[in-house]
Amino acid sequence: MTSSAQNPSATVSNAAATDVTREDGRATDALRPITITRGWSAQAEGSALIEFGQTRVLCTASFTEGVPRWLKGEGKGWVTAEYAMLPRATNTRSSRESVKGKIGGRTHEISRLIGRSLRSVIDTRALGENTIVLDCDVLQADGGTRTAAITGAFVALAESLRWARENGLLKRKAQVLTDTVSAVSVGIIDGVPMLDLPYVEDVRAETDMNVVVTGSGDFVEVQGTAEGAPFKRAELDALLDLALLGTSELARIQRDVLEADA
Amino acid sequence: MTSSAQNPSATVSNAAATDVTREDGRATDALRPITITRGWSAQAEGSALIEFGQTRVLCTASFTEGVPRWLKGEGKGWVTAEYAMLPRATNTRSSRESVKGKIGGRTHEISRLIGRSLRSVIDTRALGENTIVLDCDVLQADGGTRTAAITGAFVALAESLRWARENGLLKRKAQVLTDTVSAVSVGIIDGVPMLDLPYVEDVRAETDMNVVVTGSGDFVEVQGTAEGAPFKRAELDALLDLALLGTSELARIQRDVLEADA
Amino acid sequence: MTSSAQNPSATVSNAAATDVTREDGRATDALRPITITRGWSAQAEGSALIEFGQTRVLCTASFTEGVPRWLKGEGKGWVTAEYAMLPRATNTRSSRESVKGKIGGRTHEISRLIGRSLRSVIDTRALGENTIVLDCDVLQADGGTRTAAITGAFVALAESLRWARENGLLKRKAQVLTDTVSAVSVGIIDGVPMLDLPYVEDVRAETDMNVVVTGSGDFVEVQGTAEGAPFKRAELDALLDLALLGTSELARIQRDVLEADA
Amino acid sequence: MTSSAQNPSATVSNAAATDVTREDGRATDALRPITITRGWSAQAEGSALIEFGQTRVLCTASFTEGVPRWLKGEGKGWVTAEYAMLPRATNTRSSRESVKGKIGGRTHEISRLIGRSLRSVIDTRALGENTIVLDCDVLQADGGTRTAAITGAFVALAESLRWARENGLLKRKAQVLTDTVSAVSVGIIDGVPMLDLPYVEDVRAETDMNVVVTGSGDFVEVQGTAEGAPFKRAELDALLDLALLGTSELARIQRDVLEADA
Amino acid sequence: MTSSAQNPSATVSNAAATDVTREDGRATDALRPITITRGWSAQAEGSALIEFGQTRVLCTASFTEGVPRWLKGEGKGWVTAEYAMLPRATNTRSSRESVKGKIGGRTHEISRLIGRSLRSVIDTRALGENTIVLDCDVLQADGGTRTAAITGAFVALAESLRWARENGLLKRKAQVLTDTVSAVSVGIIDGVPMLDLPYVEDVRAETDMNVVVTGSGDFVEVQGTAEGAPFKRAELDALLDLALLGTSELARIQRDVLEADA
Amino acid sequence: MTSSAQNPSATVSNAAATDVTREDGRATDALRPITITRGWSAQAEGSALIEFGQTRVLCTASFTEGVPRWLKGEGKGWVTAEYAMLPRATNTRSSRESVKGKIGGRTHEISRLIGRSLRSVIDTRALGENTIVLDCDVLQADGGTRTAAITGAFVALAESLRWARENGLLKRKAQVLTDTVSAVSVGIIDGVPMLDLPYVEDVRAETDMNVVVTGSGDFVEVQGTAEGAPFKRAELDALLDLALLGTSELARIQRDVLEADA
Repeated sequence: MTSSAQNPSATVSNAAATDVTREDGRATDALRPITITRGWSAQAEGSALIEFGQTRVLCTASFTEGVPRWLKGEGKGWVTAEYAMLPRATNTRSSRESVKGKIGGRTHEISRLIGRSLRSVIDTRALGENTIVLDCDVLQADGGTRTAAITGAFVALAESLRWARENGLLKRKAQVLTDTVSAVSVGIIDGVPMLDLPYVEDVRAETDMNVVVTGSGDFVEVQGTAEGAPFKRAELDALLDLALLGTSELARIQRDVLEADA
Repeated sequence: MTSSAQNPSATVSNAAATDVTREDGRATDALRPITITRGWSAQAEGSALIEFGQTRVLCTASFTEGVPRWLKGEGKGWVTAEYAMLPRATNTRSSRESVKGKIGGRTHEISRLIGRSLRSVIDTRALGENTIVLDCDVLQADGGTRTAAITGAFVALAESLRWARENGLLKRKAQVLTDTVSAVSVGIIDGVPMLDLPYVEDVRAETDMNVVVTGSGDFVEVQGTAEGAPFKRAELDALLDLALLGTSELARIQRDVLEADA
Repeated sequence: MTSSAQNPSATVSNAAATDVTREDGRATDALRPITITRGWSAQAEGSALIEFGQTRVLCTASFTEGVPRWLKGEGKGWVTAEYAMLPRATNTRSSRESVKGKIGGRTHEISRLIGRSLRSVIDTRALGENTIVLDCDVLQADGGTRTAAITGAFVALAESLRWARENGLLKRKAQVLTDTVSAVSVGIIDGVPMLDLPYVEDVRAETDMNVVVTGSGDFVEVQGTAEGAPFKRAELDALLDLALLGTSELARIQRDVLEADA
Repeated sequence: MTSSAQNPSATVSNAAATDVTREDGRATDALRPITITRGWSAQAEGSALIEFGQTRVLCTASFTEGVPRWLKGEGKGWVTAEYAMLPRATNTRSSRESVKGKIGGRTHEISRLIGRSLRSVIDTRALGENTIVLDCDVLQADGGTRTAAITGAFVALAESLRWARENGLLKRKAQVLTDTVSAVSVGIIDGVPMLDLPYVEDVRAETDMNVVVTGSGDFVEVQGTAEGAPFKRAELDALLDLALLGTSELARIQRDVLEADA
Repeated sequence: MTSSAQNPSATVSNAAATDVTREDGRATDALRPITITRGWSAQAEGSALIEFGQTRVLCTASFTEGVPRWLKGEGKGWVTAEYAMLPRATNTRSSRESVKGKIGGRTHEISRLIGRSLRSVIDTRALGENTIVLDCDVLQADGGTRTAAITGAFVALAESLRWARENGLLKRKAQVLTDTVSAVSVGIIDGVPMLDLPYVEDVRAETDMNVVVTGSGDFVEVQGTAEGAPFKRAELDALLDLALLGTSELARIQRDVLEADA
Repeated sequence: MTSSAQNPSATVSNAAATDVTREDGRATDALRPITITRGWSAQAEGSALIEFGQTRVLCTASFTEGVPRWLKGEGKGWVTAEYAMLPRATNTRSSRESVKGKIGGRTHEISRLIGRSLRSVIDTRALGENTIVLDCDVLQADGGTRTAAITGAFVALAESLRWARENGLLKRKAQVLTDTVSAVSVGIIDGVPMLDLPYVEDVRAETDMNVVVTGSGDFVEVQGTAEGAPFKRAELDALLDLALLGTSELARIQRDVLEADA
């Protein structure tokens, strides 16, 4: 019932791109080993456990009939997302947001980003008056949790649509998904643009960018931040090139795992 | 680095206990298949992913030097626990407690139970002024999540003590653990006492009891609740017998997984 | 309009049970002086001020027509409870939970326990689509507040049902109560099982147990906790014996106060 | 240990003031029966259960050494108050503020009023670096709860100062209290100014005023509100006259209860 | 679209009232320069930026059809108010109440005062089932913010009613306003009663009073507080005289700004 | 003491850029009229009221000695920001976040963006152990509030540094600012890239981008979002061109207002 796909050759094919040696031996334009385990959850309508190296995010899709009150009667569906981290996903423990009694700014920001990213490839009319909630819970964090969450949530979303079709909640021919969508982080470290930063690289990056891209190679989100010095337009361009390379590989892995027999 | 232990024979050895057939084919006094994967997390000082059938709980132990302010200077350590469920651990999605902005009574109650249970086998003087926080996050729920959490948290706790010893934060000879501790649920269904209830049995139980027992077979907690009719003393006795049987099996599995090479 | 019942002879009849002298001179199997003042509140449909020695809990029952939305149309009633302590009920002042902005775990836990205990003797169909909220506010605390609350709340509940019958909100013949229910704490101090612990004993107890029992002597809740060392089965049995003795005395007092002329 | 004072003759002496008949038979310038039971609580350093007719407020004073951080080292004490109502103090049940997770505006407002009123008769230098918290919990409400709370809190405060003196926390000769303070509500109903309104009168009042007055007859607070039509200066004057009459009677009762043997 | 009114001569006409020199050169019975800019907001149905010297409050009136659920079907409207201060309105920055997650007692108290004051000059039947929310946000604070808020909110309210009439949401002839309403602070400093206190005077005042008065000179609210020593009846009278003087001047300015061409 | 700068010619110089007519008559590459009033607040160490057309944001800078505890002893300063909207800044009223008891995701996100943007031009070592809090309160909203906030906050920040220098809290020669920083929104409407979107354009935009740029023309933040269809790389490039044009104009206005006599 679960099926998984990886990128065993990804680190090989691009290995010669630069002479810079990364701590984990990767080329500057190589992704970490990516594993997506579809159907990890026995409870959710769709689910995927996604791993970008040591980063592990459990994504579930909850498909329910009906939409929030403010959307009723418009013939359109609703897709939303919630992101969270287990308290000990990271190297030192953080307090639970439920215990603190409020959600932090970072959590809010990422939840909104995931929701927008997935909605960009959804035809809400084709979805009809149904709601899909994507929960992305980071079980282990080593950089790139938001981009892993988007990439994994897409798989969970797609699986929940398949479930809905098989259970008669969607018409057989409804084309709800208009494309695939995936995301990756890129950054500049010691002046060198690099793809898919683990935590040790992330904290050193001068510029940090998260890029969300469709399967067709168009942009859904571009979020670049100067952590240290402001960045030049040429650096921006180099980072976008890397991000397009990475997301095209991720899109291939998504297709593989979704095409594996269910 | 991870090692796991199971109870492959557990369902066999007790199979003939009664003639009642449970939905999953178990004998009334048999545990579900139990799997404990020690060291699941690369980040925490101790961790265990524990499975009671389809119930899956990720337990991490965070070991830090120092104690809360109110305990300073007493030469004693502190052990506490937090329990939570992912929103889609269950068959239908629940709202996140962080989003609701407060923790529900059930969550509070279980967190306190786990903390008390683990403290019952800790010599806080031997621990010295160190703090251990156990996080028990239910990734998938199918009944018995609190008892699985206690059983798994003990393994994570033990592993974190080993880590502390290896890293010079505890004296080699400090005997922090005074015993092992595990827990199981028992209940009466259609008048028949049964061990280790999955969700489908739990909702039908007339009486429901969670029992926490040390490796030596003494009680740490006994929490019995009449869900339907009040229960007789004889029924209470039968349930306690079953619970002692189950926790003795769990204690064996805990020992096995902790003795496997680290 | 108010009537009260006490147990003047309770401390006498059992005085010779052991040779242990308790700080207040009671026998190990004697209750503290119990007073229940029914109808203490001029506002509530039912009320009782209950005293277990220095512990004083004001219990009110608010009877309203209708049930929460999720229960509508099922032909059943709803009974729930809220427990709280005044900030200076105890020896040192605690912060108000309303000021802290959240309810603590202990409060949640006890509120849920009281609700479950009372529901165990209610026939919700006979109650019809009505709601009863029991508020148990501890005015002065000296150990055993949750068991006093359950015992007093039962009296308030019964009085509110009488009120409802007299005011035409319940049929004359509706048998809503299936039994009485009361509760008591028991514990082991210096190895000796004792009944109904005041605060000074409670903090010294190695094992602490709260037991909720019906008028017929069946169990509704058994909650035993090892505060120090784990406890043996024989100790558990001795504590249950004491609890049954105490609750049978409490049941008698409840009957007396309810049978006094209204 | 408890002592109480009443105003048995109060309703007599002023009975002929007007021809208006109030629902409870009182003259327009008569107080309801007032009872103050000093020392109601066995836990607090000072306490009083005060009754204005059916209104019952439990006032406790918690005396502790030290002051809040922002006041340290100034050689002055701190007095503050918290007011709250039990959920079923009133005719219909209200939600608990602890459950709602926030304190309402009315509660805040009254707590602040009580604190200011008591501080007006305290010499904070004479108090030294000590803190007194007054908790005023309304057990039963029938109008005038805030004025009863101020009047009762003064008695609890005075008792806690006596306790502090006897326990060596205050110098024998420290004159902490500069005067007594009490409060009463007045209002205009059908054009007639009346003293000490119970709930049935309060809801009908066109103008409602709470007046806090020292034993010497000076004003500490005057809070008048037009509930219906704005009020004339002459009406304001008549209300102030009544309030001075009522508070002078309350001051006498306070003195009596404080002078009764402790 | 915006029009404003001031009191240029106000400080002149009363200049000789006493010999006391105030820090800003005003007579004891003179208002600070008052400016009301009607229509400051392009978004709200009614608005006014009001200035009492350096105190600046932005008042907006939001007029919407319909009333809260508990008022439906009664044929009456609802007027309510919310007061708040920008974090750096004052001399040192305060934390935002939104960040703290709760509203302070002072904010609650003032919001309720503003709401009551405005409702006192509203005929809610004439308003029909419509709701007006007054938001009073203090942009800069220099004493008297609550009285400025009431005075400015009345102008915003009146403008929103005009808007409603012009947009067909109120009948042309509906007499919703029964009078004007304004407010001013008065206080006793070094024994001298003074009108309209800026911050430097406010902190020194022995007695502080906020008075809300209709255009006809009747009282809506009188809130006097002894900050230091209790106050005498004669002092109360002197303060009320000053307050009536100040509010009559404010009423004139309100009329002027409302009569200016819209 | 206040000085202001505008861009009267800005709409002229670029007027011929395209043939598209915008609702307000601007060229696609023209900013709205920009006004910055420096020193609007008499209370804050630095302040600016900034207007982008009808959008009005009050920015204050609060300069205090010392840093948060976690930064103490590092010899570095701290700059942070809080963004909020008045409830009636918008066309329909929104609930206050203080009343709701929590800050929304959007507010969090923007506060963090403003803080990061300003920190990018701050040399925290040169600032020394001082803290600057920027409060950006939207008084009136018509699109682009976050970019106006960043642009105005920079002016308030610069003014507060001048204040600190004049008051001896910073060394005369400390070069705290490494550059200026401003921000603008750009978007694609009906396929045409446009600069500085008011609300009516913002809601129609297919792609929406906020760009933060230093005075030297380097990027601090690039946040592009596909509201409708994903966007092409060429579109991204065109938007970046427009943003650089707009921010260079804003940088000129910032310099003008800061160079005006203080």
